[in-house]
Amino acid sequence: MSKGVLMVFSGPSGCGKGTVLKEFFAQGGQAFLSVSATTRSPRPGEEDGVHYYFLSKEDFESKIAQDEILEHACYCGNYYGTPRGPVYERLERGENVILEIEVQGALQIREKCPEAVLVFILPPSLQELKRRLVDRNTEDMETVERRLNAAADEIRMAYQYDYVVVNDALDDAVQELKTIFAAEKLKAANRKKIIDEVLEL
Amino acid sequence: MSKGVLMVFSGPSGCGKGTVLKEFFAQGGQAFLSVSATTRSPRPGEEDGVHYYFLSKEDFESKIAQDEILEHACYCGNYYGTPRGPVYERLERGENVILEIEVQGALQIREKCPEAVLVFILPPSLQELKRRLVDRNTEDMETVERRLNAAADEIRMAYQYDYVVVNDALDDAVQELKTIFAAEKLKAANRKKIIDEVLEL
Repeated sequence: MSKGVLMVFSGPSGCGKGTVLKEFFAQGGQAFLSVSATTRSPRPGEEDGVHYYFLSKEDFESKIAQDEILEHACYCGNYYGTPRGPVYERLERGENVILEIEVQGALQIREKCPEAVLVFILPPSLQELKRRLVDRNTEDMETVERRLNAAADEIRMAYQYDYVVVNDALDDAVQELKTIFAAEKLKAANRKKIIDEVLEL
Repeated sequence: MSKGVLMVFSGPSGCGKGTVLKEFFAQGGQAFLSVSATTRSPRPGEEDGVHYYFLSKEDFESKIAQDEILEHACYCGNYYGTPRGPVYERLERGENVILEIEVQGALQIREKCPEAVLVFILPPSLQELKRRLVDRNTEDMETVERRLNAAADEIRMAYQYDYVVVNDALDDAVQELKTIFAAEKLKAANRKKIIDEVLEL
């Protein structure tokens, strides 16, 4: 059996990443969505191993030292990162794995896991992104402008990804995600077993 | 508009390459099938620019010298090769182009055109390939064995391709070809224009 596809999925806040993934799974898309590890405290209702793996700072740092964390970052004094074990267990079993992480983490993954497939999700336009952020009605205009600038900075990193999906029509974006998985399964690097089998006479 | 995808399509004799391409086009697959140039004489019914571009030896060698031939080989004293002009005209117009060429030519294309996508088509098995070659009933067993050995040598080159498609069920193979084209269109390298557009505010 061939290994699963390791897909990294990034995009600016408001681009609809979460909605695309939710619809992908709703349509029967087959992949394991990686659970991040963090040193921040669980919020009410958050379960260990479901929303996050909750680790002590010491445990997190020891895992980094043992190369058990594929990528990580520090926000507000807490670590966030991707534990290697659960990801590679699934890949070895032939399951696809999706990491929903931001750009710096994605580039760390590319370094550590050259087989990873990096997918960047674009909003249809910055105007549309602005409209979505304003419609959420949770932030003042200054915050919206700041997030728009951050989004533009992130979008300029899209050139460094393998694939770019535009979240204009949700169904198209989901279909494109499926197309990328299907194509990656056909990559020669994933076909060693079948080539070897064909050669048996 | 983004450029078209340049796809190189190879596979051993009897793997059903031609049938897959024919069905791809019958199902409305959009691509220009490149016409080779050759110095051999036209056979009855062969038209210049349709079956081949028929060139004199001098013209062919002068085109090689001007880097107007993307790949070429010599069989039985005649040159065969892929003229650059018609391929790049189509790619620039956003059309996909398929080159149906053998392995050595494919590796020449990879050198000259790093953006090319190399697809290898596998027979389901060497046994099945043998059956197909025997069923054609045009060759003696010695020739069949020779072709099978040549096929095995070629199949070992499949690892060097980007994608591997198994021609087991024709419809699946055609669908996989379409999937590869669709995924390649989503490659970040082909999305510069759309990223730039999104960034316009």
